Amino acid sequence: MPHIPLPEDLPGIRGAMAFRPETAKPLNELVEVLLRGPSTLSPGERELIATYVSSLNDCYYCQTIHGAIAAANLNDDEELVKRVKQDFLHADISGKLKALLVIAGKVQKGGKNVAAKDVADARQFGATDIEIHDTVLIAAAFCMYNRYVDGLGTTQPRDEAMYRDRGKRVARDGYVAVSKEYLAAHATR
Amino acid sequence: MPHIPLPEDLPGIRGAMAFRPETAKPLNELVEVLLRGPSTLSPGERELIATYVSSLNDCYYCQTIHGAIAAANLNDDEELVKRVKQDFLHADISGKLKALLVIAGKVQKGGKNVAAKDVADARQFGATDIEIHDTVLIAAAFCMYNRYVDGLGTTQPRDEAMYRDRGKRVARDGYVAVSKEYLAAHATR
Repeated sequence: MPHIPLPEDLPGIRGAMAFRPETAKPLNELVEVLLRGPSTLSPGERELIATYVSSLNDCYYCQTIHGAIAAANLNDDEELVKRVKQDFLHADISGKLKALLVIAGKVQKGGKNVAAKDVADARQFGATDIEIHDTVLIAAAFCMYNRYVDGLGTTQPRDEAMYRDRGKRVARDGYVAVSKEYLAAHATR
Repeated sequence: MPHIPLPEDLPGIRGAMAFRPETAKPLNELVEVLLRGPSTLSPGERELIATYVSSLNDCYYCQTIHGAIAAANLNDDEELVKRVKQDFLHADISGKLKALLVIAGKVQKGGKNVAAKDVADARQFGATDIEIHDTVLIAAAFCMYNRYVDGLGTTQPRDEAMYRDRGKRVARDGYVAVSKEYLAAHATR
């Protein structure tokens, strides 16, 4: 049961956002620009970074919904998403993305863990300054979203079909657009 | 030295924000609404939560600038800020704020650490649902900002007067207004 009374029909971060629309707005805008804005990293690659960090933080809701959004962006390849969470060094992804996932994993433990060598490795695989910046910020941001979702004790249903359907919708329409629907539905509180 | 080329005249998160104004916008709007928006927690109390979490994450820049903003909001009481970081249970703050700092400290370690008892304790001291929500999100958000600032290896000068002056300005004008100046100055990149 959530620690505070959140809308019962909205699982995970959606309940928290409907509870506090004032903070939901920048939270949605941040994830929109980070994961779907113009970038030389594809939305699928960025969702994989978000999913991996959420799995390190052991946040069921976030790793499942972002895993579903990642798969929806990657030809429905759910096996690839699983592989990235479990053993990304042997997953069928680029060397650059592997090097960026190493950086993301360091950030998850604490920003000071990122070493000059980690960044040099990523550059050797062709990573740009903006890609390195965005990887650090995606990893940092999911250390926030994960703590927000788990720290409020949000409802996190074990319902794979729900996450899969939702993942396809977010992959198609984006975070801000989809959030407007449930925020409007709860605006009467 | 920063891991990527950030503007040399802008320390801490300011350099990172000038490097990537697209993400700076929601990052500034989030901290503005969380720490300065309408709330039954004073800006000083909220800055103390941000400072405490930043000290747990050992982020020099964030704990020093938010400590300075907190002091500016609390009659320049720098000793109180120090005390909250070192031993908040014996600081001259309300029982409610102490209970909220306990929750913030749990969130810093990971959202699942927040227990029903922590929330019940805060309620006994009069904390509202929104205050509990905002405490969880402030703590979670600073787990992001701290990782962002340290993960990029930003410049973090040891210059108390700089932080004190800057703290007074942010306390007076706010995050979004102050950020517009340095973002505009670097918009020519």
